[in-house]
Formats: sequence, structure tokens, C-alpha cells
Amino acid sequence: MAGPKLNIRSKIWLENEEGEVVFGLGRLKILEAVGRLGSIHAAGKELNIGYRAIWARLKATEERLGVPLLIKKKGGAAGGGSTLTPLGEELVAQYSKVQKEIEDKTDAEFEKRLGDYLNL
Amino acid sequence: MAGPKLNIRSKIWLENEEGEVVFGLGRLKILEAVGRLGSIHAAGKELNIGYRAIWARLKATEERLGVPLLIKKKGGAAGGGSTLTPLGEELVAQYSKVQKEIEDKTDAEFEKRLGDYLNL
Repeated sequence: MAGPKLNIRSKIWLENEEGEVVFGLGRLKILEAVGRLGSIHAAGKELNIGYRAIWARLKATEERLGVPLLIKKKGGAAGGGSTLTPLGEELVAQYSKVQKEIEDKTDAEFEKRLGDYLNL
Repeated sequence: MAGPKLNIRSKIWLENEEGEVVFGLGRLKILEAVGRLGSIHAAGKELNIGYRAIWARLKATEERLGVPLLIKKKGGAAGGGSTLTPLGEELVAQYSKVQKEIEDKTDAEFEKRLGDYLNL
């Protein structure tokens, strides 16, 4: 179909009843990186986000969920590190799947319903 | 499952290659109201949005799509009015379906994958 090329965008997140963000794609990336790299410091370096910003976001998510997502390891010279709790790992794994499913579904729905009219 | 009650939120929209919004839920509501009420003025009153704001958004969408969505009727004393072009009507009808499908799918996916861990 003619017309300018359009991009389909989608965003999903979880809010508490006060309308505060509990979890979303940004926090998913942070939590995934902390789990994979084993430290908030390393995750911050990779994602180019400051340690305090990461810490504040994950702390807010833990408080809003009422469950711990990170376990801080006591460090020696290497400064410890962090691992994910089982729920933290589950949240990364399952939320990633939800995110992917919704992106695919959104693309498919737009293509199916508006592909004849718009250049998607 | 225990924990605070969480709300699932989702947002979908179309962007052009410059990253400008072409269409989304806000514009859908505007276009739907203009079509149903037959005038930008009446739609603005219902949605509590100024005439100029509505006009600017629909104009930007028309320019970014490269197609007309509204037909302005020449008015007498009643000041004319606006109707939707066939593409405008199709956009309202099909985009509404996409929006609904994605909301349902998002709820279902979260429930399926995170319902055991979170209070959704």
C-alpha cells in the first residue's frame, strides 16, 4: 500500500492502585542485566544508567510488589554483587515472554486489519 | 496470589520514520467522536479538548499519512460540520478492533504467565 512507512509501537507495564509504575520494559532490562552480570554496578555500566538510578528503581519495584527481587552478596575485595531471588528470575523470564507475545500480536493485528490501508 | 493489586496497562501507536506520532488512542477517540457527532466543535465539547487542539492533531495525522480523513462541509448558519472520509471511517473501525484485541491479549498473557506470582 502507498503512503509513508509507519512503525508500530507498543508499550506494556504494571501499575499499582496508586498509578505508580511497578514493572515495565525498562525495569525488565535492568533486572535481566543484574541477573546475568551478577552485579548492579556491571548492569549499570552496560545499560549506561547510574548505580543509584538502578538501585532506586529496583527498590521501588520490590516495595510495590512487597517481595524481594535481589539478594545482595557480602563482598570482599571484589565488592560483593547481587543475584536474583527465584521470584526475580521468574519475573524476568515470564515478563520477557509476555513482552514478546504482545509485540508479535500487535504487529500481526495491525497488518491484518490496517495493512490494506496503511504502509506498515 | 498475595501482594498488592496490580493493574496491567498497555499502549499502542503508529509512528512515522521521524518518530512522530501518526495515530494512537487519543486520536482514535477524537476521530471517532467527530465521525459520530458530525463536527469537530461537538467532538471537542464532548472530549473537553479545544477546537484548535483537535484540528492540529487530525491535520498532523492527515499530513503524516498523506491522505485526508475529514471532509469539511460548507456551512450556513449552523456552521457546516465534518464527516469522515471512507479511509477515516476504516481507520476508526479497524484501529478500535486492534486496540481491543491487544488489551485482551495483554490481560490474558499476564494472567497466564504471571498470575501465579503476582496479584493481577
